[in-house]
Amino acid sequence: MSGADAVGLPMRVPAAGLPEAVTIYEVGPRDGLQNEKAVVPLAVKAEFVTRLLDAGLPIVEATSFVHPRWVPQLADAAELMTELGDRLGDRARDLPVLVPNDRGLDRALALGQRHVAVFGSATETFAQRNLNCGYEEQFAMFAPVVERSLAAGIDVRAYVSMCFGDPWEGPVALERVVAAGVRLLGLGASQLSLGDTIGVATAGHVTALIEAFGAAGVGVDRLALHFHDTYGQALANVQAGLRAGVTTFDASAGGLGGCPYARSATGNLATEDLVWMLEGLGIAHGVDLAAVAATSAWMAGHLGRPSPSAAARALAPALDRPADQAESGG
Amino acid sequence: MSGADAVGLPMRVPAAGLPEAVTIYEVGPRDGLQNEKAVVPLAVKAEFVTRLLDAGLPIVEATSFVHPRWVPQLADAAELMTELGDRLGDRARDLPVLVPNDRGLDRALALGQRHVAVFGSATETFAQRNLNCGYEEQFAMFAPVVERSLAAGIDVRAYVSMCFGDPWEGPVALERVVAAGVRLLGLGASQLSLGDTIGVATAGHVTALIEAFGAAGVGVDRLALHFHDTYGQALANVQAGLRAGVTTFDASAGGLGGCPYARSATGNLATEDLVWMLEGLGIAHGVDLAAVAATSAWMAGHLGRPSPSAAARALAPALDRPADQAESGG
Repeated sequence: MSGADAVGLPMRVPAAGLPEAVTIYEVGPRDGLQNEKAVVPLAVKAEFVTRLLDAGLPIVEATSFVHPRWVPQLADAAELMTELGDRLGDRARDLPVLVPNDRGLDRALALGQRHVAVFGSATETFAQRNLNCGYEEQFAMFAPVVERSLAAGIDVRAYVSMCFGDPWEGPVALERVVAAGVRLLGLGASQLSLGDTIGVATAGHVTALIEAFGAAGVGVDRLALHFHDTYGQALANVQAGLRAGVTTFDASAGGLGGCPYARSATGNLATEDLVWMLEGLGIAHGVDLAAVAATSAWMAGHLGRPSPSAAARALAPALDRPADQAESGG
Repeated sequence: MSGADAVGLPMRVPAAGLPEAVTIYEVGPRDGLQNEKAVVPLAVKAEFVTRLLDAGLPIVEATSFVHPRWVPQLADAAELMTELGDRLGDRARDLPVLVPNDRGLDRALALGQRHVAVFGSATETFAQRNLNCGYEEQFAMFAPVVERSLAAGIDVRAYVSMCFGDPWEGPVALERVVAAGVRLLGLGASQLSLGDTIGVATAGHVTALIEAFGAAGVGVDRLALHFHDTYGQALANVQAGLRAGVTTFDASAGGLGGCPYARSATGNLATEDLVWMLEGLGIAHGVDLAAVAATSAWMAGHLGRPSPSAAARALAPALDRPADQAESGG
């Protein structure tokens, strides 16, 4: 008997009114691994990033220069980037890295990184809990980071977290998110990644937020969307984003990661689920689905548990079979 | 610390161009349980159906009068309907039951059921494998079932399986699905449930199939959509259906079930995931999300494994806490 996996890829049936191509911003090595308690060996991390790039992912956020006390998993950030430099040459300098503050930027600058990201909050409580400063203070903290980056010719992406709901504050008003985003762009960030950190967004809310940014003069070319699958809504929300014209979506190979403040096993939107949908919609993405699924399966082996991604699990049996068997549907 | 579960329900932000209300057709007790190897006790099944009705689900397909040799799990169909009659009175007669053939209809008629469903196939191979007859022969098999049902004043729903892809035949052409559906309606079925039996559909394909039915004179009022979450696409596909005007969606509490021909743990679209999205979109559905999630958690306990539904898992912690604690977000 052949299984659904023999189909391999969905039938391509484009839908009207969607973009022709999108950019998948892969966050697995940083956002996916940062919540893993058992430290993943440096060589595995380097292999993870390399395999994701080889699978065609155009952007892979590699690590975070956060203080090792907060995220011990990423304490090897500098060593990882050096290892990636050995493997990838100058290309490693284009991999984005998260820099929480001035000190993080110093470390990224020392390595010659050309793309950094800062991690802001739309809410007061999450700013206090995650950034260890207030909502207002975060802008003062990020201002010199962005300014120095731009002076050094470095591009800055700004994450905005808790854009839809906050576990302490509940639903978050559109205008608060827009206000936070506009300030981060005002500092000099080139792109906002709007994060549904606890996964409570639904499609109409996504559309409304994008429209609210538009009304404030921020076009979809400046926006990326970052969804979590906590309530199973991530892909439906991506579809709302596509319909509104957004062309950059964050995803994590195998669905690794998730917010430690949301009590659920379900984490980031899985790169495989996203690629499956884009493939079916005929939207160009440049990613080899089988290669990403194989990478997720390999990483799941290192982490000792199966991937939470539906597509990754569905594709896994095909990966174990010889190629000729998979192709024949045997 | 409070978790995302403290939010309880998503913020309501309607999207333009979607229906104001939908009907959720719950298939958990039949489609969900039929693949369970360990036989679920009759009392548990009766309690499952009753709790789903109490949670506000307007239609709950209770069982199938299939030959016990094919689906031993549902060998107690007549006893279950009798037990439900004792519990629910005349209302039990309105619960739909699947009747694979004339003999199944005899059993349903003997009990006085007023709604039955037949299970057809859009492809030749699945007809042979699942119905044990050819594609063409299925219509000859269903014709007397529908005719006798209508003569007895019984409403007939027709499932069409393998509407998007078939594990043996690959992608299924739109015109084949429309041809199968039109013939089933021609026999006298009142509604088609278009099934993505192996979960390979993507949103553009859903839109195209609905449009193909429209071109053949079959409006969205005659169509229901039945998605599986094998590749994580179910809710994104529901959204495409909503946008096309479909107002009936099949779902299974806790995501129970799935196709035995698709090698994946992921099954039917979970009722909880669907309700979460509808709630966020402000589309009326009449279902108490917490009550469904509590029912899924209770059933998961009987089946000995956690629900595959993202929303069910995310909501589970809140169900274990005292209500006052959940409300305070403590």
